[in-house]
Amino acid sequence: MPAHEFPLPVILLIVFGAAKLMGEIFVKLRQPALVGEIVAGAIIGPGLFGWIAPNETLSALSDLGVMFLLFDVGLQVKANELMRVGGTATLVAIIGVIVPFFAGWGIMLAWGAPQTEAVFVGAALVATSVGITASALSARGLLHEIASKIILAAAVIDDVLGLIVLAAVSSMATGHVNILEISLTAGLATAFTVILAKWGTTAVNRVLPHFHSRAEAEDAQFHLSLIVLFALSALAIYTGVAAIVGAFLAGLALSDTADARVRDLTRGVNELLVPFFLVGIGLHLNLGVFRTPATLTLALVILAAAIVTKLIGCGLGAVALGWQNVLKIGLGMVPRGEVGMVVAQMGLSMKVISPEVYAVVVFMAVATTLVTPLLLKIAFRDPALQPDKLENLA
Amino acid sequence: MPAHEFPLPVILLIVFGAAKLMGEIFVKLRQPALVGEIVAGAIIGPGLFGWIAPNETLSALSDLGVMFLLFDVGLQVKANELMRVGGTATLVAIIGVIVPFFAGWGIMLAWGAPQTEAVFVGAALVATSVGITASALSARGLLHEIASKIILAAAVIDDVLGLIVLAAVSSMATGHVNILEISLTAGLATAFTVILAKWGTTAVNRVLPHFHSRAEAEDAQFHLSLIVLFALSALAIYTGVAAIVGAFLAGLALSDTADARVRDLTRGVNELLVPFFLVGIGLHLNLGVFRTPATLTLALVILAAAIVTKLIGCGLGAVALGWQNVLKIGLGMVPRGEVGMVVAQMGLSMKVISPEVYAVVVFMAVATTLVTPLLLKIAFRDPALQPDKLENLA
Repeated sequence: MPAHEFPLPVILLIVFGAAKLMGEIFVKLRQPALVGEIVAGAIIGPGLFGWIAPNETLSALSDLGVMFLLFDVGLQVKANELMRVGGTATLVAIIGVIVPFFAGWGIMLAWGAPQTEAVFVGAALVATSVGITASALSARGLLHEIASKIILAAAVIDDVLGLIVLAAVSSMATGHVNILEISLTAGLATAFTVILAKWGTTAVNRVLPHFHSRAEAEDAQFHLSLIVLFALSALAIYTGVAAIVGAFLAGLALSDTADARVRDLTRGVNELLVPFFLVGIGLHLNLGVFRTPATLTLALVILAAAIVTKLIGCGLGAVALGWQNVLKIGLGMVPRGEVGMVVAQMGLSMKVISPEVYAVVVFMAVATTLVTPLLLKIAFRDPALQPDKLENLA
Repeated sequence: MPAHEFPLPVILLIVFGAAKLMGEIFVKLRQPALVGEIVAGAIIGPGLFGWIAPNETLSALSDLGVMFLLFDVGLQVKANELMRVGGTATLVAIIGVIVPFFAGWGIMLAWGAPQTEAVFVGAALVATSVGITASALSARGLLHEIASKIILAAAVIDDVLGLIVLAAVSSMATGHVNILEISLTAGLATAFTVILAKWGTTAVNRVLPHFHSRAEAEDAQFHLSLIVLFALSALAIYTGVAAIVGAFLAGLALSDTADARVRDLTRGVNELLVPFFLVGIGLHLNLGVFRTPATLTLALVILAAAIVTKLIGCGLGAVALGWQNVLKIGLGMVPRGEVGMVVAQMGLSMKVISPEVYAVVVFMAVATTLVTPLLLKIAFRDPALQPDKLENLA
């Protein structure tokens, strides 16, 4: 029976049940639960059993899930702590955009691809998808490390840079590059992000208590927090950046005022929805790359380039903080996820990317999200913080 | 701009923001917040501004919302307390199905409608939609009154009876009534409901601790609860009853074992999703009934019959409990909501119901959900439980 014929509760049961089952199995194997949940998506999805295919409802639940994930991460971080690492984060983001772009471009040209296709693959390698790293760091209680804060700040800046690259690349593909329009887009996105990061907390601290003291509903503070979340996510889209950047900035703005009750209620939503985000990534696993040896080779080369270029590019930006942090930050910026897929989709629909190259980019996006939590586990290995070690001592 | 062109966060902002704003306004006016949230749907929906139209994502969020609402209500009630009022509830449900059916049938025949159309309208008046009453009683902390327990038990039985009526009516419309098939449907639905209500708690109490003690994830108890919720909702659909009946029975089965953490996390999901259920009802407000005086008259007659017949029919079944309880139980069973709409939709697609009569049934369904919380507020007026009175005393 095709997936779209299942009633909603059956879809929920399969997706949520498979995610939690595989998560448990991975934890027993001493691997990150979220990798298990992505693998669950690959198992139940078109990649293997085909019980569930991506559809409108699942992608809405997945989008909501990653919004709440970034909102929750924002709640756990203070804006002024992020601003303090702003300089390093900007450097990390900029070098971390330039190196993968030129690497992707060069590899595709060497493979014999046309100029526009090479540029699109370069662009697809640019944008870090911070959801996976944020989830891995949050699950391990590592959000307060300096490397984690730089990763979060750099990922936000990276999103703005990715937007500029995308605008440039797609206008190049259509033939007329409008410098003024691209500058306006970049300016608007930058202004939105900087203003919210810098003054969002202050604004919320001043405005929210007025509403809160007048509201009569139980849990009014949670309702107001959700309205701030939806409003900033919506505004983010209209200024050109990703909804999850708005969601993260909303969490950041509320991190001073949100009480334990708001955090608990947010956690309830996350426990339900985040598995849909993780399974959603696995659902997109595209095995089309395994059809010919040439495509498979290209996929493995692009995957290696995707990992190495962020590791080097982002790491270079943080070299002043020591090799341990270079490794943590570089690895934290590796996952590409849905942004790379969107670029590839756009290229496919503009017919400047072939179906094989599309499969390669999607494979790279899923594979980088799969390996990152495993690599992060090694990079963040610290005797004082290792649950394994603590268990062995107990 | 049509609704389907809005990005997801904008839709979330409009729906959730409008619901909470109207909810607050209604509370200030000393009216139930949930009526405000339904009205919000009518305002932002096709009925008035047309910013938001029903779509796949919104209906999935609405379905999830009412599932979690009934799950939460189930968590607050003990199965053996419901079984104790089972006799009265069965009587309430049976008479409360017979009276509205024949009233709807008779009114339509008197109005000059063909036989099949009259039977469909009768069937659309049968099924109580317990979501609204459950939400109103839960919000006012009244779930532990005897009348509330009878309403919940009767609503579950009513759903099984509604299923039988629907099977009979639709087989009548297609021309061949298969008694054996209808009996099988009825038997399966009854068995599912009775077995779960009677032994669900015991089964969960025995089985869940085994899984729980082995699970390593944080909040594993919540994950297991959600899996029980999705599994029983899915099973409910396959046995023929509504998913929300399965959700309610899941909550009931877990009401012994669920700890404060599970209840808090469930509450977080409810605070997010229930507004989508309430707004979703308002979105369906069909103003087509106001086009001609004849249709409007029919709509008002059917609405009055919908209220009076459940009040009398269900009330009669509970007459031994005194007039106060007759009123509470009768009113609690008034809302028809989505079930009536589904029957009408089926009739419309089988071309046995005219578009005008379809509009009348949908108007009746929305209007009964709107008036019920207002009438319940009066029926459950009790000096000891009145927040208004308590405020005045303070």
